[in-house]
Amino acid sequence: MIRTQLLSAMDKPLILISNDDSIESKGIKTLASIMATIGEVVVVAPDTHQSGMGHAITLDRPLRVKEVPHFHPDVKAYKCSGTPADCVKFGKHFILKGRKIDLVVSGINHGSNSSISVIYSGTMSAAIEAAIEGIPAIGFSLCSFDADADFSHIESFVKKIAQTILAHGLPHGVALNVNFPAKSEQPLNGIKLCRQTDALYKETFEERRDPYGRTYYWMDGFLLNEDKGKDTDEEALKQNYVAIVPVKFDLTDYRALEMLKALPLSEIGN
Amino acid sequence: MIRTQLLSAMDKPLILISNDDSIESKGIKTLASIMATIGEVVVVAPDTHQSGMGHAITLDRPLRVKEVPHFHPDVKAYKCSGTPADCVKFGKHFILKGRKIDLVVSGINHGSNSSISVIYSGTMSAAIEAAIEGIPAIGFSLCSFDADADFSHIESFVKKIAQTILAHGLPHGVALNVNFPAKSEQPLNGIKLCRQTDALYKETFEERRDPYGRTYYWMDGFLLNEDKGKDTDEEALKQNYVAIVPVKFDLTDYRALEMLKALPLSEIGN
Repeated sequence: MIRTQLLSAMDKPLILISNDDSIESKGIKTLASIMATIGEVVVVAPDTHQSGMGHAITLDRPLRVKEVPHFHPDVKAYKCSGTPADCVKFGKHFILKGRKIDLVVSGINHGSNSSISVIYSGTMSAAIEAAIEGIPAIGFSLCSFDADADFSHIESFVKKIAQTILAHGLPHGVALNVNFPAKSEQPLNGIKLCRQTDALYKETFEERRDPYGRTYYWMDGFLLNEDKGKDTDEEALKQNYVAIVPVKFDLTDYRALEMLKALPLSEIGN
Repeated sequence: MIRTQLLSAMDKPLILISNDDSIESKGIKTLASIMATIGEVVVVAPDTHQSGMGHAITLDRPLRVKEVPHFHPDVKAYKCSGTPADCVKFGKHFILKGRKIDLVVSGINHGSNSSISVIYSGTMSAAIEAAIEGIPAIGFSLCSFDADADFSHIESFVKKIAQTILAHGLPHGVALNVNFPAKSEQPLNGIKLCRQTDALYKETFEERRDPYGRTYYWMDGFLLNEDKGKDTDEEALKQNYVAIVPVKFDLTDYRALEMLKALPLSEIGN
């Protein structure tokens, strides 16, 4: 029995967690609590809100990193002045230097990262950064911006998805973008593997004047979705399914690569 | 003759320019000068350096935008407090609202955006933002970080590539990532269509103490390239070719989508 315990303690997977809503958010505390039941957990998360940071990294100033006491009894946690991608880099190359990380999870984001939002998402940039590093990675997002959102209906999904990826791994260079419908009276219908919806944000810029008479602009927008596909993440969420999209960091459009060979580009010279 | 002039003036393509090195950089001034010879040019660029900003957008504060007088006699130019992606959104939805933009060009970046750098690149985020908006877009980068870099060997390439894309367009959702070798004694060998090199940055974090005894960390790194493919952008640049990679914003990994169907994900329920 002692031996079994020893083995299972030694076999505990090492899980690194980050997010973009900051270490103070309910989403990352929920995620850490769930992951603490299946592995050894280390959190490195931004000390302030980093939504919309895309895959930004900090090149022009140094990073501040501090341990956060009392985050969770079984979890080591650090807050970092950088972006989500910085946090993963710092977690891997400094805090956990030399150790094999079995899984990186990011979130749970307060708000959807489906469709084109994946491009702007700090949550997903942490997961994609891990994929670049060759670590299986999952970004979790809930379709609710409520800071006190109810995660109770998705906790067992989060745990089982993480366990499945820990057991089976992911193809090279792939991270999962997992979006959950917000809590409603209807139970979730299950999981759907999807493609990214081909939609875009339509922005407006509201012009205002500050107390000193100077102009400034607030950006606002809404998702314009003209993609009628039944296999998209937006459609799955609308049908009350958990939407999982495998995403990759190789941005090459291989189909376009073939098409471009027809253009007279290669004839260009000085 | 008058009619021809009139027609060609009316037919002038509308070109929006942005970058991530800021409106003060030599690269964007060079790009604007070249584009002014082929179209009507509007510049909307960050007022400060935005390298490594990835696809960040500004959600938590308003934007300041000011016209920049005397940027170039034939070019309207604006500086913006936001990110490169913000600049393109503001250019399209505010400054050029209601007008059809024929081409968005970004750069010329002082430094390479080949390989995995495309993910972190503010230059490419401006181009990808335009692709999301359905506008043909090109990001140009020179493999030299010198603020006073010599662009003379690439000017005719930049012009001809832009003219080719204006004439032929690009497939839906595609932007071009164009990287040029730095000036050397050897003339450029021409253009190669490539895929993104599968490489990654290996980071180190140098720990220092500030004058008040507090710890901070400088991130540094180098590109670790173990991709031996002959069809990569890194390889093309090494062979003194201009490297063009078509990139897309649909991050879905369709091959992984098929592979994941073998995992017991769809069996997960509450």
